[in-house]
Amino acid sequence: MSQITVIAGGPLIADVKTVFAKGLLAFDDQGVIYAGEAAGYDPPAHARRLDVQGGLIMPGLINAHCHGAMTLFRGLADDLLLEDWLHKHIFKAEARFVGPAMVGLCTRLAAAEMLLGGTTTVCDAYFCMDQAAEAYQAAGMRAVVAQGILDFPTADCPDPARNLDLARQFIQRWQGVSPLITPALFAHSVYTCSPQTLTGVADLARELGVIWMTHLSETVAEVALTRRMHNNTPPRHLEALGLLDGLNVAVHCSALAPGEAELLAQRGVAVASCVESNMKLSSGLAHIPTLRAAGLTVALGTDGAASNNDLSMFGEMRLDALTSKIYSADPSCLPASQALDCATRQGARALGLGAVCGRLAPGLAADVVILRGDEPRLQPMYNPLSLVVYAAGAADVRHVFVAGRQVVENGRLLTMDLAQIMAGVRQLAVDVGRA
Amino acid sequence: MSQITVIAGGPLIADVKTVFAKGLLAFDDQGVIYAGEAAGYDPPAHARRLDVQGGLIMPGLINAHCHGAMTLFRGLADDLLLEDWLHKHIFKAEARFVGPAMVGLCTRLAAAEMLLGGTTTVCDAYFCMDQAAEAYQAAGMRAVVAQGILDFPTADCPDPARNLDLARQFIQRWQGVSPLITPALFAHSVYTCSPQTLTGVADLARELGVIWMTHLSETVAEVALTRRMHNNTPPRHLEALGLLDGLNVAVHCSALAPGEAELLAQRGVAVASCVESNMKLSSGLAHIPTLRAAGLTVALGTDGAASNNDLSMFGEMRLDALTSKIYSADPSCLPASQALDCATRQGARALGLGAVCGRLAPGLAADVVILRGDEPRLQPMYNPLSLVVYAAGAADVRHVFVAGRQVVENGRLLTMDLAQIMAGVRQLAVDVGRA
Repeated sequence: MSQITVIAGGPLIADVKTVFAKGLLAFDDQGVIYAGEAAGYDPPAHARRLDVQGGLIMPGLINAHCHGAMTLFRGLADDLLLEDWLHKHIFKAEARFVGPAMVGLCTRLAAAEMLLGGTTTVCDAYFCMDQAAEAYQAAGMRAVVAQGILDFPTADCPDPARNLDLARQFIQRWQGVSPLITPALFAHSVYTCSPQTLTGVADLARELGVIWMTHLSETVAEVALTRRMHNNTPPRHLEALGLLDGLNVAVHCSALAPGEAELLAQRGVAVASCVESNMKLSSGLAHIPTLRAAGLTVALGTDGAASNNDLSMFGEMRLDALTSKIYSADPSCLPASQALDCATRQGARALGLGAVCGRLAPGLAADVVILRGDEPRLQPMYNPLSLVVYAAGAADVRHVFVAGRQVVENGRLLTMDLAQIMAGVRQLAVDVGRA
Repeated sequence: MSQITVIAGGPLIADVKTVFAKGLLAFDDQGVIYAGEAAGYDPPAHARRLDVQGGLIMPGLINAHCHGAMTLFRGLADDLLLEDWLHKHIFKAEARFVGPAMVGLCTRLAAAEMLLGGTTTVCDAYFCMDQAAEAYQAAGMRAVVAQGILDFPTADCPDPARNLDLARQFIQRWQGVSPLITPALFAHSVYTCSPQTLTGVADLARELGVIWMTHLSETVAEVALTRRMHNNTPPRHLEALGLLDGLNVAVHCSALAPGEAELLAQRGVAVASCVESNMKLSSGLAHIPTLRAAGLTVALGTDGAASNNDLSMFGEMRLDALTSKIYSADPSCLPASQALDCATRQGARALGLGAVCGRLAPGLAADVVILRGDEPRLQPMYNPLSLVVYAAGAADVRHVFVAGRQVVENGRLLTMDLAQIMAGVRQLAVDVGRA
């Protein structure tokens, strides 16, 4: 019988519709045992007890789109036009510096930043994903690890003709290895993947029972390019190929045409919106309330650190609420409860983990975040949901558990040597900065 | 001879155009002695030395518009239409709970949050400002403390006919008392102050040699109301009264008509933009690059915690950069250097403190912030300005000095009993929540 942990002494957000003023959460490594009012549960004598001293107890946040290893390029090139940013800086830096060791190291930095900031699940879509998966395993973080696929040479696949074979091998290596690691496929975009490649990815995903995702309609330039290449918008191009039905996550969707949100919803595609990155690059802006009204599952992602530049899901939630309000000229638009829902339950659903995480309820995994109770910016607390979205930040996270295992204690990462990771990344960055 | 402090071991942003990779800052309580490359200064033997271990050294941030004591109402009423928020919640709560003791306590909470978050100067415009000034004095924070004036009964002036007399007495009590405290006048708005009151405020400001400010063109509803009341937009109403020339700070300006930015610039009025609050309330959006292009001094403010909901100037800088980019469809718009300039040098200039603070240079006060060098979200560092605006947050502040005095050390406030303040505010909030 495994150790039971009992957390009490603060409000508990089990999900955005279920908030307990004096909450208690009991769990072990098999999952949540109890989530409710403290008065309703009698902890066993042998349980480990954690008094959170007024701190808020909530589900771990879910970052539905990230390129973890790009922490190496954080702040390398900012305030630039998208094409200059991508072609003059990021693609060059990636071509020169992305490789297995870099991905292993820099994904560890990403995992550390995310766990310390209350993100317990990430969907990481990049290259050299064996090393990324190992990094998340080492961090003790739940991760959907999606192998990137393009029709161009990449760090882990110099010959694009082999990309599906290598992706298949990656999936097969990681399926069933760890309950925390879910391998997946990431077809980069409709303008970097041929119809044949896209079809191959979709077929492989179906055959192996994994999810797949793609960047979709991020910018009007991408939409225009896709029109020139395929005489269609990105979603309608996928629809014409018969691939929209089966696509699990469309990333960005910040330049959808009228009716396309409804089309995605009909096909069961979830959206991963990355508003901070989209704003920083002026890509366009997904209007989340409109997407939700169309019936879509809308998850939130940070995108990579090169275009954000942090990996804070608190920042995403707040920014999404603020942009939704100002764009609608309606301050009741995307209230705190909906923003937090996107970053938790909807995120889990988008990644096929709705039965695993995203809320705190018996039977689900104990992916838990506890905020500090003693931060001046978190005083007073009238409404826990509002506090999380409009006042709290990544630095207010005190304790984090993933699948019942404590990975952050009093703001310190328990699973990896963070000082060593940071020193390694700084060392690597010296070369990047010189290049 | 006062103690000299020498800070080195990290990059130094003296101002946004003057960044030293291996910086050194030397100062005493009279001001900055040296700000430059470490190699260029030979510290005296008796100096106190602080090695910041890679942390970034920068000028303290300047919050150009805040209602400090409204920390009590943080999170009390969110996601509401502006009129409901103001009339059904905030005005009611203010009428019942604002008073000298509340302002003293809750302004201390605001000061603590701001200092811990790297804000060394605030312009606080509210009521019971003797208690606010005492709070900032106790905190060791630089503050422009602006007495609120309306034609309605307020917590400190039940009889509006006496508001100018009481304001005069407030100014006279505080002029020359402390180098940190600058008394000032805050005429609430053109729709809550009659032409006579506005003229009285402007005359009093000129007579006593203090600055004055007002909320101006925050929403289209305010503009429409002013048109009905005075047949003019808010700026043109002030211009017609002969008051625009002499107004020091126009707060918000998120609903200016074409040509009005230029008019404000011609009259020498500075703007305090509060983008996060404006977005949260869907008030409108000041387009900072346009205001700057019109020649305006643009400072940034958090507004009160009831509409933000934190008092982080890092959050303001980032949000201003992001909204400027997406609104211009140009990611080079409001680059990091300009956002930081608004939050430092422009802020000081707007508040009449340009010769005192806002940058680190010999002769200016030593209002200094040092960031942590060991946070994963701050790794790596290619460009200090970019790091400050796009990656750092209030929680990354490690040390803070105001006028050469250390007020925050390793993230701990040295000047006040923070636990006691937070406990007091929580206690007060119990009644607010019940009301």
